[in-house]
Amino acid sequence: MSDTTPTGPSAPGTDALSQLGRNTPAASCPEEAVLERVPSPHQGRKYVVRFTAPEFTSLCPVTGQPDFAHLVIDYIPSQWIVESKSLKLYLTSFRNHGAFHEDCSVAIAKRLVELLDPEWLRIGAYWYPRGGIPIDVFWQTGEPPAGVWIPSQDVPGYRGRG
Amino acid sequence: MSDTTPTGPSAPGTDALSQLGRNTPAASCPEEAVLERVPSPHQGRKYVVRFTAPEFTSLCPVTGQPDFAHLVIDYIPSQWIVESKSLKLYLTSFRNHGAFHEDCSVAIAKRLVELLDPEWLRIGAYWYPRGGIPIDVFWQTGEPPAGVWIPSQDVPGYRGRG
Amino acid sequence: MSDTTPTGPSAPGTDALSQLGRNTPAASCPEEAVLERVPSPHQGRKYVVRFTAPEFTSLCPVTGQPDFAHLVIDYIPSQWIVESKSLKLYLTSFRNHGAFHEDCSVAIAKRLVELLDPEWLRIGAYWYPRGGIPIDVFWQTGEPPAGVWIPSQDVPGYRGRG
Amino acid sequence: MSDTTPTGPSAPGTDALSQLGRNTPAASCPEEAVLERVPSPHQGRKYVVRFTAPEFTSLCPVTGQPDFAHLVIDYIPSQWIVESKSLKLYLTSFRNHGAFHEDCSVAIAKRLVELLDPEWLRIGAYWYPRGGIPIDVFWQTGEPPAGVWIPSQDVPGYRGRG
Amino acid sequence: MSDTTPTGPSAPGTDALSQLGRNTPAASCPEEAVLERVPSPHQGRKYVVRFTAPEFTSLCPVTGQPDFAHLVIDYIPSQWIVESKSLKLYLTSFRNHGAFHEDCSVAIAKRLVELLDPEWLRIGAYWYPRGGIPIDVFWQTGEPPAGVWIPSQDVPGYRGRG
Amino acid sequence: MSDTTPTGPSAPGTDALSQLGRNTPAASCPEEAVLERVPSPHQGRKYVVRFTAPEFTSLCPVTGQPDFAHLVIDYIPSQWIVESKSLKLYLTSFRNHGAFHEDCSVAIAKRLVELLDPEWLRIGAYWYPRGGIPIDVFWQTGEPPAGVWIPSQDVPGYRGRG
Amino acid sequence: MSDTTPTGPSAPGTDALSQLGRNTPAASCPEEAVLERVPSPHQGRKYVVRFTAPEFTSLCPVTGQPDFAHLVIDYIPSQWIVESKSLKLYLTSFRNHGAFHEDCSVAIAKRLVELLDPEWLRIGAYWYPRGGIPIDVFWQTGEPPAGVWIPSQDVPGYRGRG
Amino acid sequence: MSDTTPTGPSAPGTDALSQLGRNTPAASCPEEAVLERVPSPHQGRKYVVRFTAPEFTSLCPVTGQPDFAHLVIDYIPSQWIVESKSLKLYLTSFRNHGAFHEDCSVAIAKRLVELLDPEWLRIGAYWYPRGGIPIDVFWQTGEPPAGVWIPSQDVPGYRGRG
Amino acid sequence: MSDTTPTGPSAPGTDALSQLGRNTPAASCPEEAVLERVPSPHQGRKYVVRFTAPEFTSLCPVTGQPDFAHLVIDYIPSQWIVESKSLKLYLTSFRNHGAFHEDCSVAIAKRLVELLDPEWLRIGAYWYPRGGIPIDVFWQTGEPPAGVWIPSQDVPGYRGRG
Amino acid sequence: MSDTTPTGPSAPGTDALSQLGRNTPAASCPEEAVLERVPSPHQGRKYVVRFTAPEFTSLCPVTGQPDFAHLVIDYIPSQWIVESKSLKLYLTSFRNHGAFHEDCSVAIAKRLVELLDPEWLRIGAYWYPRGGIPIDVFWQTGEPPAGVWIPSQDVPGYRGRG
Ligand SMILES: [Ca+2]
Ligand SMILES: [Ca+2]
Ligand SMILES: [Ca+2]
Ligand SMILES: [Ca+2]
Ligand SMILES: [Ca+2]
Ligand SMILES: [Ca+2]
Ligand SMILES: [Ca+2]
Ligand SMILES: [Ca+2]
Ligand SMILES: [Ca+2]
Ligand SMILES: [Ca+2]
Ligand SMILES: [Ca+2]
Ligand SMILES: [Ca+2]
Ligand SMILES: [Ca+2]
Ligand SMILES: [Ca+2]
Ligand SMILES: [Ca+2]
Ligand SMILES: [Ca+2]
Repeated sequence: MSDTTPTGPSAPGTDALSQLGRNTPAASCPEEAVLERVPSPHQGRKYVVRFTAPEFTSLCPVTGQPDFAHLVIDYIPSQWIVESKSLKLYLTSFRNHGAFHEDCSVAIAKRLVELLDPEWLRIGAYWYPRGGIPIDVFWQTGEPPAGVWIPSQDVPGYRGRG
Repeated sequence: MSDTTPTGPSAPGTDALSQLGRNTPAASCPEEAVLERVPSPHQGRKYVVRFTAPEFTSLCPVTGQPDFAHLVIDYIPSQWIVESKSLKLYLTSFRNHGAFHEDCSVAIAKRLVELLDPEWLRIGAYWYPRGGIPIDVFWQTGEPPAGVWIPSQDVPGYRGRG
Repeated sequence: MSDTTPTGPSAPGTDALSQLGRNTPAASCPEEAVLERVPSPHQGRKYVVRFTAPEFTSLCPVTGQPDFAHLVIDYIPSQWIVESKSLKLYLTSFRNHGAFHEDCSVAIAKRLVELLDPEWLRIGAYWYPRGGIPIDVFWQTGEPPAGVWIPSQDVPGYRGRG
Repeated sequence: MSDTTPTGPSAPGTDALSQLGRNTPAASCPEEAVLERVPSPHQGRKYVVRFTAPEFTSLCPVTGQPDFAHLVIDYIPSQWIVESKSLKLYLTSFRNHGAFHEDCSVAIAKRLVELLDPEWLRIGAYWYPRGGIPIDVFWQTGEPPAGVWIPSQDVPGYRGRG
Repeated sequence: MSDTTPTGPSAPGTDALSQLGRNTPAASCPEEAVLERVPSPHQGRKYVVRFTAPEFTSLCPVTGQPDFAHLVIDYIPSQWIVESKSLKLYLTSFRNHGAFHEDCSVAIAKRLVELLDPEWLRIGAYWYPRGGIPIDVFWQTGEPPAGVWIPSQDVPGYRGRG
Repeated sequence: MSDTTPTGPSAPGTDALSQLGRNTPAASCPEEAVLERVPSPHQGRKYVVRFTAPEFTSLCPVTGQPDFAHLVIDYIPSQWIVESKSLKLYLTSFRNHGAFHEDCSVAIAKRLVELLDPEWLRIGAYWYPRGGIPIDVFWQTGEPPAGVWIPSQDVPGYRGRG
Repeated sequence: MSDTTPTGPSAPGTDALSQLGRNTPAASCPEEAVLERVPSPHQGRKYVVRFTAPEFTSLCPVTGQPDFAHLVIDYIPSQWIVESKSLKLYLTSFRNHGAFHEDCSVAIAKRLVELLDPEWLRIGAYWYPRGGIPIDVFWQTGEPPAGVWIPSQDVPGYRGRG
Repeated sequence: MSDTTPTGPSAPGTDALSQLGRNTPAASCPEEAVLERVPSPHQGRKYVVRFTAPEFTSLCPVTGQPDFAHLVIDYIPSQWIVESKSLKLYLTSFRNHGAFHEDCSVAIAKRLVELLDPEWLRIGAYWYPRGGIPIDVFWQTGEPPAGVWIPSQDVPGYRGRG
Repeated sequence: MSDTTPTGPSAPGTDALSQLGRNTPAASCPEEAVLERVPSPHQGRKYVVRFTAPEFTSLCPVTGQPDFAHLVIDYIPSQWIVESKSLKLYLTSFRNHGAFHEDCSVAIAKRLVELLDPEWLRIGAYWYPRGGIPIDVFWQTGEPPAGVWIPSQDVPGYRGRG
Repeated sequence: MSDTTPTGPSAPGTDALSQLGRNTPAASCPEEAVLERVPSPHQGRKYVVRFTAPEFTSLCPVTGQPDFAHLVIDYIPSQWIVESKSLKLYLTSFRNHGAFHEDCSVAIAKRLVELLDPEWLRIGAYWYPRGGIPIDVFWQTGEPPAGVWIPSQDVPGYRGRG
């Protein structure tokens, strides 16, 4: 879905949205961010939706210094899909929020699970190196349902230099 | 199969085709596009056919702005294979058509399933980023049949810059 | 095995070969090409042999224009292995032969199965794009035997430009 | 520059813009598209601005079929820089416009030269293959001014398959 | 330019073409192939046109065995540009023609120079390995004119295995 | 977790740490290094934590010469996660320690298992070549628990030169 | 230079530094950030120092939304080199600062020029795409001095998807 | 393990070795090469050891010409690990030895199995192309034991040129 | 040129060759190897010929152990081109020859200069690492003649592991 | 040159070497390391020698923590070449030595210049990131002599993650 102001024909199931097609300032913290959902098209088909967010940034809860991560989120909708502009604004709301890598990565996934009650969801969080050693965090809600195709995330590992 | 005008010997099972080897203008919308099929060679052998379409484009249904995707379609023919020129023209017919990413990706797969009644089919739709966050959509008709070789699509993830 | 003229010590099981170490013109069509085999060394060990042929070319049966493919063939020998120079000449014999992608790819595999009666065999045929959309064809004789190691072919997908 | 609706503090020199921060439908052809400019910041410093547009598409003037290109534009501003949303909409206006590769590529550059009267400008147009053979077009206004740093565009060449 | 049958509006300067938009069988040897030209658009602008042909194949003049090459041709038009379908058919005409690598590579360039009388032209011919050692051939008509931008061809070198 | 001196709000469960946010000289040998742990956030969720350490160096126990390795460690926390600064200092403590590749790689994993009593843990140790032949060592505590997502480490193999 | 708290022997010329080896909160805007310098070692030798900052982020001045960039800065010291921790904190101070891409990129360079009065300096700013089209900005103080080696920055271009 | 002359403290279990830390001429044929073993450290832990040998060379048994291969060997020790210098000298002993690709690849694996009686072992032999078509050989002793982690060898396929 | 036995039409200027199209055992040392030449086609055109030899191997003159190198040779013919099969056999003759990297690399170039008296010649010798540190040797006969196009060799640097 | 114990024929000009072919413990600091030289072969030919050392490590002079770098050294010998084992031991001697990046990188180059009095020399030092921002240092003795070929070092830039 697009996150720009609508100029085309209206789309079904998007009437109640508060952010798509509107000028929406980012929330100042994750708790205040409004994640929105729309009915999944093709209900009954178990497809996977993948979001890749290479622009995620939060703060270290101990030092207050900025941390950066490349996030990849995969999920299988049940009745709802997440509205993509609200997801973008939700991720942006971590900009001035402090959280440990392990904590923050899993928390994002849990918030989406709460909103969407999906068939299945996973997050891969690929944090930039600190002290020469990057941390990655991987979590999924459980064994994915049989018969659904979920490609590898295949984010390249950290290589140092040379 | 080729999509150019025939100059060689005629090929079996291609007589009824309306587009292969003819000057065929693209349809103005997916509904008007004519997808055609020919009998599968080597019937009884479960092989996989992969189409890679890096030139797919449609419109955002809300804003009317162009969206772009790299599509990869895999299927195992049952009795029919899709005629490749008609597939190309079908994909081209989305050029001025508005659809959400999740909707459009699954719809293409369903249209092919209808035409071909294949043993199995899947689509990977790798959309270009909007708002810095690309969406990928993955769907298959179900667990692939045992004993058939289906290589990974291995389309590289989005990396931002640098 | 090498396909050059022999100057070293003779090798066991190669006496009956008609092409290895001889000046052999390529056959003018696949039917006339002579595929040869030699006894598998290490019989009883289930190993995989992979041939990679990035120089395959045939003709389009409809238009007569040249088509190109990158082929990868994997097999587990039973009693025989294919003599590699005869395989090269067999593949060369498609140079002026017309066949659809799906047909040609599976036909090559079937001819090898006939000759070698292998434990298992597969072919990956990665055709160059026509009309902007390449076709890949994947076939194997069935579920590979348990306990044999068969690495992924990992041929990169087509990316268009940029 | 961003192409979304403004919610932040107003920026100097952007008052006269008709498209940035507004819902602007794309023009139906290049002639109707409105390219806009703003005063270059840091006037007197010869810096290079590079736009990369991997989503360019136009029509073949002979067959009416869609063509695709990956465009990279480099320029050294004199008094003006191009407003990026208007550039995006200008490029989008080629969507239903027919032009030969060589013609279209150079025409885009000329239009920008007209608008901006830059110190120097070049375009690299990397077209998707047709008939197995892609065409690239490279043009610049002339020898770049001495002492300005202009990195290579380094767009990878087309490799066929395998 | 496209090499498919015309269905769109006619394009200026293409009336005399014998192959574009027509069903044209490939010539049986380079001498018989008809290379065609059209007037260069944007005359007076020195731009570079690059063709990449990863599907070139000819025969070894000594052994009659097929050779393969990846060709990249760059030129700066003077009054003419080559019509791309005729170029494709010209290259295809080497399919059953015997020539040494060094000879064949330079000969293609000379034929184009004869036809187009360009400002400047070069060819890079990247031949597949024979005996483990590939040969590349590089030729240009002379020092390129000043002030024209000619990007590197950047074809990756041969790496053996692993 | 960060390994810099704390300036932000204090984080729960980190009070007992002796190294995080303090100036801590590296231990002179692995035995003296103090590995520390903190309670796992999101207890009950089986997530994977990956550390990538491309700067590992130890000494050859026979010759005393430096060896280098790229290490990747994956684990599923049970009650504890390792504090990352203490892990970094632990790895640094091998700098003047002699150990065979096989021994050293597994020993690091065992030390972590002892500290964390994790659900599961593995180490991939990718040693630089000696005598032209690198050694990699791979170990895990056993079959990973079902339903947990553990991506491939995907460290590229050694390729020699060229 | 390291940005961690000092535990080793004191280093010459670093006594006056206010941030290196101290807990230093990031400034809230670029104007308040304190950039520091130390005497260049090996004065009289014209060497190049390159900083790569893949974690740069600022705000769009029009919409207030976050922008991201990968920055590469090269300079030839005259009498001073920049102290790296103060540079890091300076770059971090843009986190909540609004600026256009062209403006912000050149401003960073000018601030460093002011501080260091270097022989020569350049910046490459590779911004993440907005609206599908990334902007890069390149600036240098002028022709680099002869006889100094300045390698290409070689940051890969943006490729869209696939 | 290192293959250089010992200058450090003696290591346990290495007393009986005849080659490590000594000047050892390579054997003139595989039969004469002395493969040596030392007790596996961490007995009872099923870890994998990988050797990568990109410098393997032998002779074609028919023509006497040199062949080259990139070898990757994986094994799970039972009681023994191979001493790496003796492995290197063993591989070097094929330098003037003639053997077919399929034969030679499996023979190396069998010799190691004989020496080490490992839990499991596999070899991937990636031969350089001859006649344009490389051969790879893959063999393992059988299904690997459950619960042991064995990463993919992931040696890139042969791509021809371009 | 091909190095296989001739079966096609005879080629001009190849009558005096002693090795092309014949069974030729490799010479036992470089001095005994017979390098042969044929008249350059297209005399008067200054083109570049590049040979890439990823399979070069010689012996260390001090220890007698095998060394490996990836060689790339570029030259501009004057009256002669080297016959490629004789070049291959010449390179093979170093197999049991001892020479230092610097010596051997330049010696190969000098031998070719002697034979061909070319306009210009260079060699890039990329040796496999010994002791973790590879050596590359680059030499050319002098400044290349103006107006000839000589692409970069672009052999990737050595990266260690990971 | 090799750094292993000699077993082959003695090589000219190596008699006076104290480390090559001997068991040589690494020096404990750079000042104590003995760099050795041998006469350049092919005197009068201006060739380039490149050393790539991906395993360099030293200590931070302020914090005492280990730093890592990938070094590439290029030089044109005048009368001497460096003996490679002594170079390796010299680089190893920085293992417990503290120095700033800028200082250390240039110091290594100066020491080599002193020893070899080369025609020309340069060093590229690619340091691992600290605080997310790596530093590279580039220095050369001056403009390289005309007519000598010096390929780009082409070490890939740092990319962060993802
Ligand atoms: Ca992977
Ligand atoms: Ca590394
Ligand atoms: Ca993959
Ligand atoms: Ca980045
Ligand atoms: Ca693209
Ligand atoms: Ca290929
Ligand atoms: Ca390049
Ligand atoms: Ca290799
Ligand atoms: Ca992989
Ligand atoms: Ca190689
Ligand atoms: Ca480049
Ligand atoms: Ca693409
Ligand atoms: Ca793989
Ligand atoms: Ca190719
Ligand atoms: Ca480069
Ligand atoms: Ca990234």
